[in-house]
Amino acid sequence: MSEINSFFQAKNVAVVGVSKDKQKIGSIVFNNFLNKKFKGKVFPVNPKYEKVFNKKCFSSVKEIPEKIDLVIVAVKNVIVPAIVKDCVEKKVKAIIVLSAGFSETGKKELEQKILTELKKSNGKTRLIGPNCLGVYSSESFIDSLFLPKNRLQRPSKGNIAFISQSGALGSAVLDWTALKNYGLSSFVSYGNALDVDESDLLEYFYHDKETKVITMYIEGVKKGRKFFQTLKKVNKKKPVIILKGGASNAGNQATLSHTGSLAGSSQVFDAVIKQCNAVKAETLQELFDFARTLSINPKPKGRKTQIITNGGGYGVLTTDCVENSGLKFAKLSRQTLKKIRSFSRDHAVLKNPIDLTGDADNEMFEKTLTYCLEDKNVDLIVLILLFQVPTINEQLIPRIAGIIKHYNKPVVSVSVGGAFSEKQRKKLEEKGILTFDNSPEAVKSLKALVEYYKK
Amino acid sequence: MSEINSFFQAKNVAVVGVSKDKQKIGSIVFNNFLNKKFKGKVFPVNPKYEKVFNKKCFSSVKEIPEKIDLVIVAVKNVIVPAIVKDCVEKKVKAIIVLSAGFSETGKKELEQKILTELKKSNGKTRLIGPNCLGVYSSESFIDSLFLPKNRLQRPSKGNIAFISQSGALGSAVLDWTALKNYGLSSFVSYGNALDVDESDLLEYFYHDKETKVITMYIEGVKKGRKFFQTLKKVNKKKPVIILKGGASNAGNQATLSHTGSLAGSSQVFDAVIKQCNAVKAETLQELFDFARTLSINPKPKGRKTQIITNGGGYGVLTTDCVENSGLKFAKLSRQTLKKIRSFSRDHAVLKNPIDLTGDADNEMFEKTLTYCLEDKNVDLIVLILLFQVPTINEQLIPRIAGIIKHYNKPVVSVSVGGAFSEKQRKKLEEKGILTFDNSPEAVKSLKALVEYYKK
Repeated sequence: MSEINSFFQAKNVAVVGVSKDKQKIGSIVFNNFLNKKFKGKVFPVNPKYEKVFNKKCFSSVKEIPEKIDLVIVAVKNVIVPAIVKDCVEKKVKAIIVLSAGFSETGKKELEQKILTELKKSNGKTRLIGPNCLGVYSSESFIDSLFLPKNRLQRPSKGNIAFISQSGALGSAVLDWTALKNYGLSSFVSYGNALDVDESDLLEYFYHDKETKVITMYIEGVKKGRKFFQTLKKVNKKKPVIILKGGASNAGNQATLSHTGSLAGSSQVFDAVIKQCNAVKAETLQELFDFARTLSINPKPKGRKTQIITNGGGYGVLTTDCVENSGLKFAKLSRQTLKKIRSFSRDHAVLKNPIDLTGDADNEMFEKTLTYCLEDKNVDLIVLILLFQVPTINEQLIPRIAGIIKHYNKPVVSVSVGGAFSEKQRKKLEEKGILTFDNSPEAVKSLKALVEYYKK
Repeated sequence: MSEINSFFQAKNVAVVGVSKDKQKIGSIVFNNFLNKKFKGKVFPVNPKYEKVFNKKCFSSVKEIPEKIDLVIVAVKNVIVPAIVKDCVEKKVKAIIVLSAGFSETGKKELEQKILTELKKSNGKTRLIGPNCLGVYSSESFIDSLFLPKNRLQRPSKGNIAFISQSGALGSAVLDWTALKNYGLSSFVSYGNALDVDESDLLEYFYHDKETKVITMYIEGVKKGRKFFQTLKKVNKKKPVIILKGGASNAGNQATLSHTGSLAGSSQVFDAVIKQCNAVKAETLQELFDFARTLSINPKPKGRKTQIITNGGGYGVLTTDCVENSGLKFAKLSRQTLKKIRSFSRDHAVLKNPIDLTGDADNEMFEKTLTYCLEDKNVDLIVLILLFQVPTINEQLIPRIAGIIKHYNKPVVSVSVGGAFSEKQRKKLEEKGILTFDNSPEAVKSLKALVEYYKK
């Protein structure tokens, strides 16, 4: 196992700073590993105790009689260099330092001490942090998040990795992805990036089989050249979507007080994203909308978009979105139109949008979707399903999922409404159809998909 | 009771086109009135039956032995003119024609016939529709929505009116407002606007005591001058927020096939909104975000915004939003800063944003909010509460609600996260604190508030 892999796949883990108090950071982290999901072994370290939580407690990492892959450190800042020294001597591959009180509060010399110890390993020991939340893996269940599970839900398994420079933002977003059921492969909050930085993590996810798409919240990058080269390489294989905090002048000033990173102008950062053809998100919602779209949908042939709806007003609003996004409108062939005319209502409007109107049934939707997907003038589809009308129902969902799979063209759906629609939206997602509760997000996501594959 | 009032406050209602089949439009509407919430009387009309749903059925409106305020019509299009004739002769004040198949499908002459009958009343009988969903009032429980309640939830009581030109869009949005718990006073879908149009409805809500803010989805306006004058007058008293469907060229073309209205260029429409100082929304989410902000928050003194957070990253992102929105940053007085410094953590950052950091507790939030509200350099506050950390809890919510009420300055809060945060978000809303799950929406809403009051 390589050093960076050990952060995500460690078998033997030690937690330094476990105490008898359940509420303490070290104890919360230690208990994260005691659930049945983590398949490896975990060792508590604290010289004060013989036993904690019914487990033998070790006075130091070096005292543990087995090989240790990962050490998670939750002790007072001044003690951290000594712990790191122990870890290097023990040939531990990976260290996560959760403790705060380093360069972010002006204590740079303390970070230098850590670095001095770490260098003795000649790169055989790597370190994430300090001042971070560390790692959550939905595959191995390595979990250094020191916020209790009743406050911070863990996300379900998925193929999106999330890298966050900010711990608090990362944890709030992680919690939110759990609520929204956006599956993640891994989450990393890397804090002060004393050793492992955003580029190293990108490189890890480049190889990680569980990850298809990478999302990042970044305020600033210290090693610009390294980041540029890594991003360029990684983004060619897997889409990287980036939300830059501090993109405005005032925001940039605020990052100084936060992560201490001044990235230079956001124009430079934008240029880097553009040159690498990575995907830029303007909001956290976009970060995950774009990631989900890119993780589910195939490569589009072009940008010609067909809208299919059973509600005229939503068709109109979606048309506005498509025009404003810079996507193009598909023009169905005469043959396709003739086929759809043969079964649709007399008052259905067969243009773009196709408005099957409020009395359209399951079969009309299925056939219309099929003929539109067959038409070579169509590259992308926005499928608007308003479930307020009883003429369509949930039996439609597996059928259209089958159709979409068969034709291998990008389709996003929009379903707006209350409790019943919410249920259908979940079913659509379960069947692998990306579903939004409003059109602007759906269309922006298709645009991001097209932009990523345009080269 | 005036004619237009009768649409929303009728005591005696007749439904024409009730049948023995529960699924039929007339039957669904009739049954809407049979619940205990509607305080008036309802009469079914259908010449085919003696009795429907255990009630005496009348062969015509004229046969009903009582005065009728409102007649809801759900019969075949060709029969509608005769029904309207009956209503005029019966001196009915208000008619809602749900039936479709008129000018929207090219049958203009059928609409003319209705109009001819209606004119005989000399304005004493008014008509909403045809081709509409009609009215829902959360005060009187008048409910002509012919979509079943298991598909279309009804919203809770509130002070926002929603006027929609599109029926399907209106119903989906209504359903969605119920899910989101955005309270509404009334909803109207006015369809082809043969008689009562958007301006008449604006005028009604101008006087309506239940309504504080008016939202509109409009594709096009027939009587431009009337609309301009009414909007100007109404918006001075109550904020009117408008989402224009078909704002793009392609969208404008799509409205032609939908509501048949070509509003001319959206530039003209934008100019009307601007001249009236009404509020423009770009999305349905904005339509209701802005409405809720304007219905809850007091008039701001200016645009100087203070951000308070316990998560640095969210502070940074919110700073970006404030700068991009055109709001200004508040600069706290020395005195205020000194007060906050006296109780906050050493590592707290007391600038704008104020980052109380992840270990801030309830009291620190309460005091900081109080001192910021007291500071005359602060006009608006964005309060970011990340509930992932156990140092703050729900006891904070009533306390800050009390503080906000006392100082009478606009405050919006942002709370991002999973199940626990979702619960707190609901509690915040229950206490009258507008709460968003992301910063961009919160800041845009404050901007809309400032813009409305700027004159």
